[in-house]
Amino acid sequence: MRQEDPVAPTAAEADAMRRALALAALGLGATSPNPVVGCVILDAHGEIVGEGYHQRAGGPHAEVHALRAAGDKARGGTALVTLEPCNHTGRTGPCAQALIEAGIARVVYAVSDPNPTATGGAETLRNAGVAVESGLLEEEARAGNIAWLTSVKSGRPYVTWKYAATLDGRIAAADGTSRWISSPESRADVHRLRAECDAVVVGSGTMRADDPHLAVRGIEGAVQPLRVVVDTEAAAVKPGARILDDSAPTLIAVAEDATADLPDAEVVRLPRAARGLDIPALLDALYARGVRSVLLEGGPTLAGAFLEAGAVDRVIGYLAPVLLGAGPAALSGAGITTITDALRLDVSETARIGPDLRITAAPRVPTAPAPKES
Amino acid sequence: MRQEDPVAPTAAEADAMRRALALAALGLGATSPNPVVGCVILDAHGEIVGEGYHQRAGGPHAEVHALRAAGDKARGGTALVTLEPCNHTGRTGPCAQALIEAGIARVVYAVSDPNPTATGGAETLRNAGVAVESGLLEEEARAGNIAWLTSVKSGRPYVTWKYAATLDGRIAAADGTSRWISSPESRADVHRLRAECDAVVVGSGTMRADDPHLAVRGIEGAVQPLRVVVDTEAAAVKPGARILDDSAPTLIAVAEDATADLPDAEVVRLPRAARGLDIPALLDALYARGVRSVLLEGGPTLAGAFLEAGAVDRVIGYLAPVLLGAGPAALSGAGITTITDALRLDVSETARIGPDLRITAAPRVPTAPAPKES
Repeated sequence: MRQEDPVAPTAAEADAMRRALALAALGLGATSPNPVVGCVILDAHGEIVGEGYHQRAGGPHAEVHALRAAGDKARGGTALVTLEPCNHTGRTGPCAQALIEAGIARVVYAVSDPNPTATGGAETLRNAGVAVESGLLEEEARAGNIAWLTSVKSGRPYVTWKYAATLDGRIAAADGTSRWISSPESRADVHRLRAECDAVVVGSGTMRADDPHLAVRGIEGAVQPLRVVVDTEAAAVKPGARILDDSAPTLIAVAEDATADLPDAEVVRLPRAARGLDIPALLDALYARGVRSVLLEGGPTLAGAFLEAGAVDRVIGYLAPVLLGAGPAALSGAGITTITDALRLDVSETARIGPDLRITAAPRVPTAPAPKES
Repeated sequence: MRQEDPVAPTAAEADAMRRALALAALGLGATSPNPVVGCVILDAHGEIVGEGYHQRAGGPHAEVHALRAAGDKARGGTALVTLEPCNHTGRTGPCAQALIEAGIARVVYAVSDPNPTATGGAETLRNAGVAVESGLLEEEARAGNIAWLTSVKSGRPYVTWKYAATLDGRIAAADGTSRWISSPESRADVHRLRAECDAVVVGSGTMRADDPHLAVRGIEGAVQPLRVVVDTEAAAVKPGARILDDSAPTLIAVAEDATADLPDAEVVRLPRAARGLDIPALLDALYARGVRSVLLEGGPTLAGAFLEAGAVDRVIGYLAPVLLGAGPAALSGAGITTITDALRLDVSETARIGPDLRITAAPRVPTAPAPKES
């Protein structure tokens, strides 16, 4: 088959790509700074003969796992890959070359590799006589790799702001009590979110109020995220804080000029903003450590600072069917004073999580102004 | 067919009852202090030969409309009625008698009449040799008549608290601007709610901030609700207020001892509570006027007073995918200071209304304490 004569993907190939997407998702939270990738090999008869996914940074790529599983049966077969096979030699060899050497006749991938150092795999394959198709289930594959794709484009980690609030927007009662507003089901769901992210970030207010642990619990094999406290004055993380245990790595971000005693943990010093730390500098520091996805877990002040900095890519709200009528709100100080400046989102999903409601939304792209309402 | 030998409803009868429920719903907002009722008559072959619904208080009952439409074809037929046919002579004659006189052989109704002055219809029918079945689609019929059924049981109107807020629970920005947080689709949906209720209630804060109109717009044939302002000091409704126009009736509730000039509208004087007016006294006054369903449209203080008084039966929240980070909350002063006293609800429905999310929930019955969470 020649590249001038493309053949549309078959139904069996689409099924195999769906499987590859499911495999890719198993790597979420473990592959950064790499993307998640899944691969399924079909033999010449369209039967699955091998599959694999990128399990962690530094380990074999998805294609290598799948080719190993397929062995000789890969010869003359088709590889379904969620991302364009890489063309460069990093900690592992180029996947395009591995596919060629295994005798793969056709490669179908979902999303092109936007990474300038890795792209070119499709061309290498074509030059070796392999038929190449792209774009199969591209939208689903983009969604599955949204954190990595966004971080490649923006040069900073993909940020999800997660909050749990009552229907009237409170995160605690008037006296500060808050355990538990959301349900056990929602809290379990948050552990899944943590496991899928590279870093979990909280502010000093949450640190003081909740002494959070922030590690992943209840998810077998999860790679623990980096636990990050934005503690501008180096005053909120006390000796004995739960976050300082050894169940996950911990990083404390403090102001360059903070003079308080530093906690017994890794510390990064960052410039100040008008209030608190400079958020872009924090994200740069995390990016430099390989963090590509951040779960911002609060509290309201830090969330306001991230939103004001335009540094939130996704909002996940757990709304508990509870009313309080008093107590702190889920968000404060985002720099919005009048309704026309309100931050408008597009809801991509709503789901019932136990008794709660989970809303997933993304800020509207700033270049597309909201339509005037009458 | 004898009453000792009940015959389960047929599929055709269930279909006819569904039609009767849809007809009944057409009367919402127009029948108080009566319930909404729908009726479908099937002839002896199971064909629909007449249908009707109770269109407004003082007008013919559903059965009478349906029997008129069926004429002689009702003889030997079956009547499907959403509520047990009444047995008393009020402004209209008893429906049980009308069904007997028309020669109806079988009556299937959904919900028994809990009203002591009207009940007994089933017995009258049976005594006349009519076969009677009850309970067909009872749950749906209860839901369709929930306001009336609740008001019969509680002796006060059924209260729906409606609010529109951002995802972070704000009803306006920090500078007080709020037009529009929710979408045109949600605002249209609120007009439907108003049309289905007997009275729409707001407090003095909303009166001052929004000068609301509160009439139903955009719904053909809608009966306008009574517009009620809780204006304790008789100071919020100014001459020229939009609520004082003649598009719907208006009632201003003020304190017994309020001394300010009264607006040019009907006024009811009520006892004070610790803050504002006594909510049970307000509801008594509305009940005495025939109001069986109230739409409480705000603002946060009045909603807090209703909730504190245990006088909210249903909560409908329109959540706009918007973040503000500052501004007044949807609810305040409900008398809750700590998390264990939080008002817990059960969500019965979530729906997307345009870009917004509509959540329908009901406070948990106070006699069933929430399970301890770990």
